[in-house]
Amino acid sequence: MKKFVYLFSEADGSDKNKFGGKGANLAEMTRIGLPVPQGFTVTTEACTQYYEDNRVMNDDLRAEILENIVKLEGVIGKKFGDSQNPLLVSIRSGARASMPGMMDTVLNLGLNDEVVKVIAEKSGNPRWAYDCYRRFIQMYSDVVKDTGKKVFEELIDEMKEKKGVQNDIDLEADDFKVLSEQFKAEYKSKVGADFPSDPREQLLDSVEAVFRSWNNDRAIYYRRMNDIPASWGTAVNVQLMVFGNMGDTSGTGVAFSRNPATGEKKLYGEYLINAQGEDVVAGIRTPENIDRLKEVMPEIYDEFVKNVNILENHYRDMQDMEFTIEDKKLYMLQTRNGKRTAAAALKIACDLVDEKMIDEKQAVAMIDPRLLDQLLHPQFDPNALATAKPVGRGLAASPGAACGQVVFTADDAAAWGKEGKDVILVRLETTPEDIEGMHRSKGILTVRGGMTSHAAVVARQMGTCCVCGCGDIKFNEQDKLFELGGNVYKEGDFISLNGSTGNIYGEKLPTVEATIGGGFKRIMDWSDNYRVLKVRANADSAADAKKAAEFGAQGIGLCRTEHMFFETDRIAAIREMICSDTVEQREKALAKIEPIQQKDFEELYEALEGWPVTIRYLDPPLHEFVPTDEKDIEKLANSMGKTVKDVKDIISSLHEFNPMMGHRGCRLAVTYPEIAVMQTRAVIKAAININKNRAADKQVVPEIMIPLTSEVKEFQFVKNIVVETAEKLIKDAGVELKYMVGTMIEIPRAALTADEIAKEAEFFSFGTNDLTQMTFGFSRDDAGKFLDAYYEKNVYESDPFARLDEKGVGKLVKTAVTLGREGRPDLKLGICGEHGGDPSSVTFCHNVGLDYVSCSPFRVPIARLAAAQAAINN
Amino acid sequence: MKKFVYLFSEADGSDKNKFGGKGANLAEMTRIGLPVPQGFTVTTEACTQYYEDNRVMNDDLRAEILENIVKLEGVIGKKFGDSQNPLLVSIRSGARASMPGMMDTVLNLGLNDEVVKVIAEKSGNPRWAYDCYRRFIQMYSDVVKDTGKKVFEELIDEMKEKKGVQNDIDLEADDFKVLSEQFKAEYKSKVGADFPSDPREQLLDSVEAVFRSWNNDRAIYYRRMNDIPASWGTAVNVQLMVFGNMGDTSGTGVAFSRNPATGEKKLYGEYLINAQGEDVVAGIRTPENIDRLKEVMPEIYDEFVKNVNILENHYRDMQDMEFTIEDKKLYMLQTRNGKRTAAAALKIACDLVDEKMIDEKQAVAMIDPRLLDQLLHPQFDPNALATAKPVGRGLAASPGAACGQVVFTADDAAAWGKEGKDVILVRLETTPEDIEGMHRSKGILTVRGGMTSHAAVVARQMGTCCVCGCGDIKFNEQDKLFELGGNVYKEGDFISLNGSTGNIYGEKLPTVEATIGGGFKRIMDWSDNYRVLKVRANADSAADAKKAAEFGAQGIGLCRTEHMFFETDRIAAIREMICSDTVEQREKALAKIEPIQQKDFEELYEALEGWPVTIRYLDPPLHEFVPTDEKDIEKLANSMGKTVKDVKDIISSLHEFNPMMGHRGCRLAVTYPEIAVMQTRAVIKAAININKNRAADKQVVPEIMIPLTSEVKEFQFVKNIVVETAEKLIKDAGVELKYMVGTMIEIPRAALTADEIAKEAEFFSFGTNDLTQMTFGFSRDDAGKFLDAYYEKNVYESDPFARLDEKGVGKLVKTAVTLGREGRPDLKLGICGEHGGDPSSVTFCHNVGLDYVSCSPFRVPIARLAAAQAAINN
Repeated sequence: MKKFVYLFSEADGSDKNKFGGKGANLAEMTRIGLPVPQGFTVTTEACTQYYEDNRVMNDDLRAEILENIVKLEGVIGKKFGDSQNPLLVSIRSGARASMPGMMDTVLNLGLNDEVVKVIAEKSGNPRWAYDCYRRFIQMYSDVVKDTGKKVFEELIDEMKEKKGVQNDIDLEADDFKVLSEQFKAEYKSKVGADFPSDPREQLLDSVEAVFRSWNNDRAIYYRRMNDIPASWGTAVNVQLMVFGNMGDTSGTGVAFSRNPATGEKKLYGEYLINAQGEDVVAGIRTPENIDRLKEVMPEIYDEFVKNVNILENHYRDMQDMEFTIEDKKLYMLQTRNGKRTAAAALKIACDLVDEKMIDEKQAVAMIDPRLLDQLLHPQFDPNALATAKPVGRGLAASPGAACGQVVFTADDAAAWGKEGKDVILVRLETTPEDIEGMHRSKGILTVRGGMTSHAAVVARQMGTCCVCGCGDIKFNEQDKLFELGGNVYKEGDFISLNGSTGNIYGEKLPTVEATIGGGFKRIMDWSDNYRVLKVRANADSAADAKKAAEFGAQGIGLCRTEHMFFETDRIAAIREMICSDTVEQREKALAKIEPIQQKDFEELYEALEGWPVTIRYLDPPLHEFVPTDEKDIEKLANSMGKTVKDVKDIISSLHEFNPMMGHRGCRLAVTYPEIAVMQTRAVIKAAININKNRAADKQVVPEIMIPLTSEVKEFQFVKNIVVETAEKLIKDAGVELKYMVGTMIEIPRAALTADEIAKEAEFFSFGTNDLTQMTFGFSRDDAGKFLDAYYEKNVYESDPFARLDEKGVGKLVKTAVTLGREGRPDLKLGICGEHGGDPSSVTFCHNVGLDYVSCSPFRVPIARLAAAQAAINN
Repeated sequence: MKKFVYLFSEADGSDKNKFGGKGANLAEMTRIGLPVPQGFTVTTEACTQYYEDNRVMNDDLRAEILENIVKLEGVIGKKFGDSQNPLLVSIRSGARASMPGMMDTVLNLGLNDEVVKVIAEKSGNPRWAYDCYRRFIQMYSDVVKDTGKKVFEELIDEMKEKKGVQNDIDLEADDFKVLSEQFKAEYKSKVGADFPSDPREQLLDSVEAVFRSWNNDRAIYYRRMNDIPASWGTAVNVQLMVFGNMGDTSGTGVAFSRNPATGEKKLYGEYLINAQGEDVVAGIRTPENIDRLKEVMPEIYDEFVKNVNILENHYRDMQDMEFTIEDKKLYMLQTRNGKRTAAAALKIACDLVDEKMIDEKQAVAMIDPRLLDQLLHPQFDPNALATAKPVGRGLAASPGAACGQVVFTADDAAAWGKEGKDVILVRLETTPEDIEGMHRSKGILTVRGGMTSHAAVVARQMGTCCVCGCGDIKFNEQDKLFELGGNVYKEGDFISLNGSTGNIYGEKLPTVEATIGGGFKRIMDWSDNYRVLKVRANADSAADAKKAAEFGAQGIGLCRTEHMFFETDRIAAIREMICSDTVEQREKALAKIEPIQQKDFEELYEALEGWPVTIRYLDPPLHEFVPTDEKDIEKLANSMGKTVKDVKDIISSLHEFNPMMGHRGCRLAVTYPEIAVMQTRAVIKAAININKNRAADKQVVPEIMIPLTSEVKEFQFVKNIVVETAEKLIKDAGVELKYMVGTMIEIPRAALTADEIAKEAEFFSFGTNDLTQMTFGFSRDDAGKFLDAYYEKNVYESDPFARLDEKGVGKLVKTAVTLGREGRPDLKLGICGEHGGDPSSVTFCHNVGLDYVSCSPFRVPIARLAAAQAAINN
């Protein structure tokens, strides 16, 4: 039979998968001789088994837990449920990855009416004994029987009122005794049975409750935010209770071996005298700084510092520890690698290297890449954020924090912005015409649209904070106001947006600018030494390209040419092209765009200095470019000698039922080859011009990328147009110019037929945004309506648009990599979807053998670090 | 070196793949001693090579052709280009499958100024000689140099006018001589070079032109309509010219060994005296019935009849033959299995069995399953159709022919229909509310919407003719008129629709009712003996189910419950459910629907008599059900005690960017489990009721199908709801009831993770409509905008929504079949997409090992026959 329960002295301190982080570290601290209250760990495997058995704890496990209680009695020399020498224990969760506060805990277990009486007498401290008892009843009721905490808090408040005192600490033994009785009565009325007096029943039900708490809403949410799979399960630690609430010679506290906010090498923590752990966290009493302990209990303090140093040296990382002093004796209750800010993470890693505690590789491996986002975007002042309440929530479309005055049109945003005001642009949805106003805004908030909506894509590109798709907003553009969370916000009102969480605040929250420092460069340089994957950026302009270079990109993996089309100086010609009736008219309009587009490319190539650049041809459906407002339609009609009705007819003929799956991508080039001809002319002529003055090793080699291929013949058709046009220009110019023609793999069929496509395409770039949409069969813009229900019901553990779905989408990517390399062994492979900047997806890309990832400039450092970690961990 | 050219006497008459149908049959006729003008065949492989070489005919092939001309000279005893004894040849295409009239032909090749003079003298028939010459110049110019025919026809007309005659046959030798000169001058002005006098140049260029014609627009279109792959290529036959235009002892004709319209066993054909083949087809002169030949040339007639019998006995099928009489000598120019109507096909197959020419298996194998459509739907009178010109064209959404008076609202359609009028309902698009009007209409025409639009799906189900998505229509509902092809059609005007071609006629075309007979039952019975695949029908009501039974379905593979929701007596409750704010409200609305839905199922089960039935749970996005017109919105608001604005807000909140990929399918059941609960209650309670009075072997076993699964946990979630609800009902009723829970596989990710899903699902049904959309990344409703360009440019050869794309979608189906059976060896597998009624897709389903196909009732016979052929051919 499989063993599911281990004494701390039996468990393997290096096996967090089995014993959870807390269990493993308790075993390890026991092994190295630190003063740990002993106990045993019920493994994560037992939790998994529990879920496999449809949430039933089987008899074997029950028996094994009870056997281990007997063993523990032997170790401690106390007896569970014994009235004379009772063993009391705590029951705590402990998953593989630390999930602080997400799951449940029961303290003081083993008490009942009889036991409490005895310990009250024996200890001579009845106040302590009955305080413990009422705490236990309270926690057990809440955790095991789901009664909630509120009713108990109310009873305490009534008691305090009756006694005319302010704080729990002013209540006396008898008060707690009365409360215990009241609590039990409350339990009985809620649960319909007496409060259990058998400690074994208490124990087994509590263990099961901790298992259950693995799937409570906040744990599910936390796992999703932190990429923790539901399959891991949690371990449960049953540990001898030690009491910080036995009087003034007792206490409890938490401490970090270094400052978790700054990384400074200095003990950082707090404690409370005469308290249990929960009191420190609850914030009812204000804890003391750990430095004070030096004065109050100097010996205990010294012993604690010694233990801290032992632990930091042992784990070679900053430790987050809980301790309890029971009547002048120090116990270490827990240690773990501490959570930290990005700045602290960088500083600690560099310091540890300098202190020779770890090497560079370990330094790179220890930093959570997702933290880096904090360094690159403004953040809210943490103090202000602590008390602020969001009034609503949308999609966290582009990270960072923004605070400013509400405006309702892009024109207003531009005007106010020029005046030096901080503005937040609030729109139903943004359109290409809004570009300048978006540039001038501190933040962008939209009512409609998903993570790949115009607002989201453009904001991420610019590094501007954006929250989108907040459907709860009642938007009234005419009166320049919107309603949210029961409040009305008018033009000029201040609001704040958190683009990293999607939260919207109806007030002014101060922001702090991002600062890159604290070893950022050292960590990045070390990362670059270890990684194999190249990191490129998605950038559509010379400005973006320069930003990408600052962040260490090694080229551009995706230049979306349509964003160039949206600029005001050319949108007129684009619209003319779209509304053309004949090829000739279309060519005439395209001829106006060509020199502008050529200049765009020249500027981009200039910024690149010989880096590779992948230029994607026109991708979005044409209706995205047409004017929506009456005046613009009239202007367009006039300029083309058409009636307004003609233009409107054309616009309405562009309507699509499912634009995502409509007339876009290379389909445009198949129906209107002249568009591909124009784009090729611009790409190639720009390259010829720039290369003239460039050294041989800095020559531009444009990588022309055909989007949305689903069939090799379709790719071939467009490629033929490109090659024919390019070759003629090169020949006419009498120069040599290398260029490549490749494709996005973003449609399932392209992945499935990648062998054929690779025979024609020189490179693949996985467009995992669209590939995810098609593979799952849902549109990113619409999925918001049901994805929350999917998370709640545990159907999805993470957002497939943020983290690449390895099981489905990943299978297609692997298929395409394998087939693609069959078709062309030297096929260049990259990814340019949003996943290119997601650490776990970067790991996948490394493992599957891609050559590079490409992501938005602001995520380049994250990708560099994640790529290094993937290489190191492999 | 590979041999590309074979004399008829060398070629293998059984190898149509290599020699094409015509070439193989010419070789075969040569072998069995029929009077065939000799020649040689350039193989289909040469054509394929030509396209692989980027449309260049290589020197080796050129040389090989010219060598074979020398061999042919030896066989015939004439010399190519020789002025005294010239060899003249015809150049004809001949693909693997017969494609009559789709590719090009050049006759009389080998003529030039010198040769024509000699044969004019030698034959004593200068009229004939110059007629041949001008024909040659004309055909060569058109076929090889793409000059078009028109200018030549005009010159002939001028000549006739000048001479004051009506017919070509009244022109004289000198006239043709003049015309030849004019034609050559025309050639020179168009082509910019003299007309080639070298027969070798003429020959090689003509062969290449025939290769080229493999990819002309009409050939591409024909291939697409007939499932012929572009990779096959065409062979080219170079054959000694024999002349039917040498005077009254000469002639030419075509004949069928049996009547191709009725199948009657009687020679059927026409001929013309003193003519070349093209004249018979051109229709300038009215040909004589073949029976007349018996009187005019009795010996020739007898010889011909003898040959016909030899050929029919040899090929054991009805033959379509061309013959020429050159100065009293009969030549057989070609034979092939003749095209025929459905009725003829059935009769001929049965007759041949009765005549012991073939066995039953061969009879089943010889009928094109697509023909059966003709038998089941009304058709236009072929005579009327021959001269009618369509005024526009839409998607051929539901087959058949319809003629009636235009109405613009479903209410009018219902009212006029009740009065006994034939009406055609013309709508922008249809909605669920139009259902009664649609039922009352002879045909349905919509401006918007694709092959899976509401109109299309409902019409196919009802067997009503439907043309949809005709975007050229300018629709004016208010004034009750529409414009198309420059004409205005008002309410009450007659139009006609061909649902099999998509053609729209602005006039009254008489239709003829379908008649099932002529061996239909015999062929179907024989088919059922051979097929392995079961055939089910897609049917949503008892009426549909009965229709399906008539056509031989073995169960229902897809009952779409949402169609039940659209009926007028329940749509109000559906809308109430959609506009509910709370679960309780929703449950209240659902409670109104439950008994109605239960009754639907009871009626369906009654109709089934123990057949299997697959019931798909609610699939479409909810916005499809909400009212669109102001009055209905107000009604809804009143009934729910909401304001009109509230209801409008709810409706607008249901808007989706890409409804195809939105909140639908099982996603509805995840967010609103109460819908699945209600549907389960209806399905199970109905089954319990019906089974009470049923024998043990006729018990209903409902197959509950969860749509749109993309992840096993999602399926699991909904399945748990179903099972929990069902088990409780069964337990409460104290009965035993079997039921199954399975899923559609219609999303790529479901196919990719089919092993996991099969562990939970008891059956899979491939929803290849959606699977095709997701795999290709285009929406069926939008693809119309670019698919034509794709066909024209040869990117796609067939409509992937009509014929299953084996390379991409098929790969996913295969993957799902393999993985699915890994997960559950006894997994039941079927298909319920439109492909279930497409013969080539049925073959795929057979080969991939599905258990059944399910298609609309009217396609059941097609599927039965196709399934039998798949089994026979395997």
